[in-house]
Amino acid sequence: MDVARLVELNAAYVRAIDNEKFEQWPKLFADPCLYKVTTAENVAKGYESGIMYADSRAMLEDRVSALREANIYERQRYRHVVGLPMVLNRKNGAASVETPFLIVRIMGDGTMALFATGCYHDKVATDGTGALKFVERIVVCDGARFDTLVAIPL
Amino acid sequence: MDVARLVELNAAYVRAIDNEKFEQWPKLFADPCLYKVTTAENVAKGYESGIMYADSRAMLEDRVSALREANIYERQRYRHVVGLPMVLNRKNGAASVETPFLIVRIMGDGTMALFATGCYHDKVATDGTGALKFVERIVVCDGARFDTLVAIPL
Amino acid sequence: MDVARLVELNAAYVRAIDNEKFEQWPKLFADPCLYKVTTAENVAKGYESGIMYADSRAMLEDRVSALREANIYERQRYRHVVGLPMVLNRKNGAASVETPFLIVRIMGDGTMALFATGCYHDKVATDGTGALKFVERIVVCDGARFDTLVAIPL
Repeated sequence: MDVARLVELNAAYVRAIDNEKFEQWPKLFADPCLYKVTTAENVAKGYESGIMYADSRAMLEDRVSALREANIYERQRYRHVVGLPMVLNRKNGAASVETPFLIVRIMGDGTMALFATGCYHDKVATDGTGALKFVERIVVCDGARFDTLVAIPL
Repeated sequence: MDVARLVELNAAYVRAIDNEKFEQWPKLFADPCLYKVTTAENVAKGYESGIMYADSRAMLEDRVSALREANIYERQRYRHVVGLPMVLNRKNGAASVETPFLIVRIMGDGTMALFATGCYHDKVATDGTGALKFVERIVVCDGARFDTLVAIPL
Repeated sequence: MDVARLVELNAAYVRAIDNEKFEQWPKLFADPCLYKVTTAENVAKGYESGIMYADSRAMLEDRVSALREANIYERQRYRHVVGLPMVLNRKNGAASVETPFLIVRIMGDGTMALFATGCYHDKVATDGTGALKFVERIVVCDGARFDTLVAIPL
């Protein structure tokens, strides 16, 4: 599992969201998996629960369906800029990785604003076909506007 | 064409612009080439025309000359942060690549603002000397302040 | 010294700062070393002095101690997003590298603001154990709020 493959996986992840091809997003996860959105403050305090939680691909797909029905995403666009991945350890073909992110929200009139920053805490592993997947992706936000966070995957 | 070489090409691109060494910028393109600035909205609607267009290195050089004469760039600085490149396909030594970007504008008094976000839609290939060049770079902006966009290459 | 190792070094650097594990920060430097914070304007004018200066690991450690005592960092968090590194030249196992950065500051109430942008001008080399270290890291800020810059390493 080299850095080039991590770059590829993360690039596919943000591309699915920013191009609003949300249906591709669950496919980047293992099944079962863990996807959770939380805050640095909650992590520091040891709180387990998050703002968003899914532990299977079906749950991720449900979320995409809800998003499509709500049509909320059409009011604005998002742009992820993902930093350099840091591999913390590798074990039995799986790796723990931390990757910083920054998300900008672009409104219909072109106004841009910082939407969220934080760090992805990931466990990644190859599946049966050799493709790299997220076994876990914990989205640890530094600070965020949680009223709107439900709208799109982070 | 591995990720490391794409990283190198993109790093050279943003360095030329952010360090105001604009004369280096056209050299990163093939000749003929295609350089176009447009918006995600225009792309979605199928509009072909863009805000800026050049199809040869000479046109890119003209743009740099105009910029130097106008001296507009001296009033502010720009900082590109380029995300992870995603190779969509490779064919006959050429590759289609998408790379997200974020540009911050820094005014003379130190004030910083988000200037533009978007995604580079590129075709890259090696030239006769083996150097990697942009055959196409379509700059697809999420949203942007187009009054000032003429000032510098994106 | 390939790009993957530069990515790793930079990822460790920003992780130490953004996770407030400041004690890990000096260990990423050679000893003696050069760490300096300055501005693009000062560099253009040929000014040698910077806002912050250290030429040994002990000086970097002093800075961390001062920071810990002041507890200033607790009031806010920072998030670095580092761009793609550009290797300018390699000589005798050392490399000159430029790497753009963007730092967001996140206040206790979740408000986010651009804090600083700029470019790291580095000399990196492997030490006796084969680990990659910063022999020099000149932090060239495009613009920044220098009242608060003393608080954390950039």
